[in-house]
Amino acid sequence: MFDVTRYATAAQAIVDAGRFLYDRGWSPATSSNYSARLDPDHIAITVSGRHKGRLSTNDVMVVDLNGNPVQSDAKSSAETLLHTVLYQIYPDVGAVLHTHSVKATVLSRLIEAGAPFEVEGYELQKAFPGVDSHDGRLRIPVFENTQDIPALAERTREWFQHHPEQPGYLIRGHGLYTWGETMEDCLRHVEAFEFLFECELETMRVCR
Amino acid sequence: MFDVTRYATAAQAIVDAGRFLYDRGWSPATSSNYSARLDPDHIAITVSGRHKGRLSTNDVMVVDLNGNPVQSDAKSSAETLLHTVLYQIYPDVGAVLHTHSVKATVLSRLIEAGAPFEVEGYELQKAFPGVDSHDGRLRIPVFENTQDIPALAERTREWFQHHPEQPGYLIRGHGLYTWGETMEDCLRHVEAFEFLFECELETMRVCR
Amino acid sequence: MFDVTRYATAAQAIVDAGRFLYDRGWSPATSSNYSARLDPDHIAITVSGRHKGRLSTNDVMVVDLNGNPVQSDAKSSAETLLHTVLYQIYPDVGAVLHTHSVKATVLSRLIEAGAPFEVEGYELQKAFPGVDSHDGRLRIPVFENTQDIPALAERTREWFQHHPEQPGYLIRGHGLYTWGETMEDCLRHVEAFEFLFECELETMRVCR
Amino acid sequence: MFDVTRYATAAQAIVDAGRFLYDRGWSPATSSNYSARLDPDHIAITVSGRHKGRLSTNDVMVVDLNGNPVQSDAKSSAETLLHTVLYQIYPDVGAVLHTHSVKATVLSRLIEAGAPFEVEGYELQKAFPGVDSHDGRLRIPVFENTQDIPALAERTREWFQHHPEQPGYLIRGHGLYTWGETMEDCLRHVEAFEFLFECELETMRVCR
Repeated sequence: MFDVTRYATAAQAIVDAGRFLYDRGWSPATSSNYSARLDPDHIAITVSGRHKGRLSTNDVMVVDLNGNPVQSDAKSSAETLLHTVLYQIYPDVGAVLHTHSVKATVLSRLIEAGAPFEVEGYELQKAFPGVDSHDGRLRIPVFENTQDIPALAERTREWFQHHPEQPGYLIRGHGLYTWGETMEDCLRHVEAFEFLFECELETMRVCR
Repeated sequence: MFDVTRYATAAQAIVDAGRFLYDRGWSPATSSNYSARLDPDHIAITVSGRHKGRLSTNDVMVVDLNGNPVQSDAKSSAETLLHTVLYQIYPDVGAVLHTHSVKATVLSRLIEAGAPFEVEGYELQKAFPGVDSHDGRLRIPVFENTQDIPALAERTREWFQHHPEQPGYLIRGHGLYTWGETMEDCLRHVEAFEFLFECELETMRVCR
Repeated sequence: MFDVTRYATAAQAIVDAGRFLYDRGWSPATSSNYSARLDPDHIAITVSGRHKGRLSTNDVMVVDLNGNPVQSDAKSSAETLLHTVLYQIYPDVGAVLHTHSVKATVLSRLIEAGAPFEVEGYELQKAFPGVDSHDGRLRIPVFENTQDIPALAERTREWFQHHPEQPGYLIRGHGLYTWGETMEDCLRHVEAFEFLFECELETMRVCR
Repeated sequence: MFDVTRYATAAQAIVDAGRFLYDRGWSPATSSNYSARLDPDHIAITVSGRHKGRLSTNDVMVVDLNGNPVQSDAKSSAETLLHTVLYQIYPDVGAVLHTHSVKATVLSRLIEAGAPFEVEGYELQKAFPGVDSHDGRLRIPVFENTQDIPALAERTREWFQHHPEQPGYLIRGHGLYTWGETMEDCLRHVEAFEFLFECELETMRVCR
């Protein structure tokens, strides 16, 4: 059982996040999925295949941390397990956003297999938790895309068990996953990642 | 004879689509034309030369599948026959959108004569009907531009008779045609194509 | 003497054009100036130095075709004579817009001295008057920038006397002038030029 | 003591500036900080870490020109001293804006250590005070980024004592500082700088 008022609050936060992310062009063509934690065992998550710029609370359902629907006949996002793994591993995580921008897609295809996305020297790295200087290196992994979501969920679980301090990851040709203690933190991380992706691509455009 | 309520609904869908597509910059300077099916023999379609971001239902008329006006003295889009061919070939098609973005225009001029636009490995290919994996190849033809629309309509008819499973095509220096069972499907296809065009151009910008 | 109702209508058209052009990023930082004809001897034109996205009718004054203020103590745009020359040469011109976009600025600096801006094969060339096919060449001149506006006005006058069929020109590092029979026509020309500038720059980005 | 009505006016100007700058993408992810002068000894400045697109007057506090809070328990922006130095050096400055755009960030990283950002031949250079022709050269310094803000504040103080006529500066990987007699002037300078940054980057994209 979950608290219904927490569900309503989480659903509204997801609806609002969708409008913002869609308007920025980061969740086109019914791509992307979003979630927010209700309690240690339940999350609210977007129903599969909905237009992210026009979500209503009807487009947000509840699943447990195994990805099973709770009090709902709807089908949750095909990538639900990528969300639940993060809530299992990180007890403080309150929101997870998967976005699907042009920049994340292009960059994730340009990075060679097995290599991470890396940046350094950007003041905006301070937007991520635990970073208090531009003077370090931010590294996030790039996973190969697959339609086998349970397998990918396990790969991310293993990776994060060995790399606990990570604010996000990319899936090749598929986009960004990032998370935070609150939806507001999580949205700040999306903005910071998109900023860094755009900076890196702009640099590549003028520097080859 | 056609059902007038269906006309009103289709006209409003076209008006709303125009506002969206114009605001994205995909239908500038009175370019583009849009249509929606009313029944097996009639479509609603934009009147020639109107501003696509400020359409009213006055800017939408009815034509039969030969492109002849029905109950109207207005002149339909110069490219009406490119629409009617699609409704003739594909009985399930309910909406056709022709857009005219910078990205579609530039890409269509860069592709060599006779070659298609091709992409593979993008998760967003799943936005198109019948595609359930990133792991295939999307190919759409690029037709040479001409002011002889009946001739171009016949070329597209022949092509689609031999390539029935296609979500769209480009005309060189002229833009995109795409279609769907509903206007919502069709708008999703426009967004997905524009996403893929932008990804391909961004990759070319940084990888030459 | 001029008709005050025509003034009010023209001033509102200028205010609305300013909001549109500023929102597109084509008139930043109080750059640009706009005008509309009232009668054979008078035009409404923007007052010098105003924010183009927040014009009110207070920011629009009347000048005669020599550029002298009529019933106003305000100072008209420093480039007023570039407008009045066009109204003198072209009796059918009802509106003139000077915009100052990044694309127009960059392209105008890349074209070599004495050469025009040229495009061909774009369907959108049909947005200009008298063009009914993509299959021609659009050529517009690029004038060297100067702070001596009377001298530049005379250079444009001479040029247009020998090249009567022109929809616009560029000033190097300074932007676009275009005109039309109505403000709506003129705005369509701005959109078409910006589309073509963006197409040409995008092509240069990926094709060097 | 400061005049509370001046505070309220300054705070509202800062709130409005934030909405504009955030919407343009120039203050993402809680980056940036803004201030406005109340009197010779006090400024209003943004509280540390707030979302710049959703500021309210609750997010604006008062500090003296040594950066100490006045009638407030809040913590002002970590970069407060970079603001107060400018108000100390320039008695006519009424507003200071620090923005954090992709273009400013990328350009500031591309310029070699010790070299300034320089442009010439742009009509828009006239947006800056004392510039009445495109025919000069605009030079602004690029300071190395640091988390030691007092030290950076002293470096900027020394630099401006020897270069009094400057409309702004960059911090490498960190963004733009610019100022003006009024908030409106200051916003015009941000727009002009962003225009010039975009022009220079666009030129680099197509000209390497």
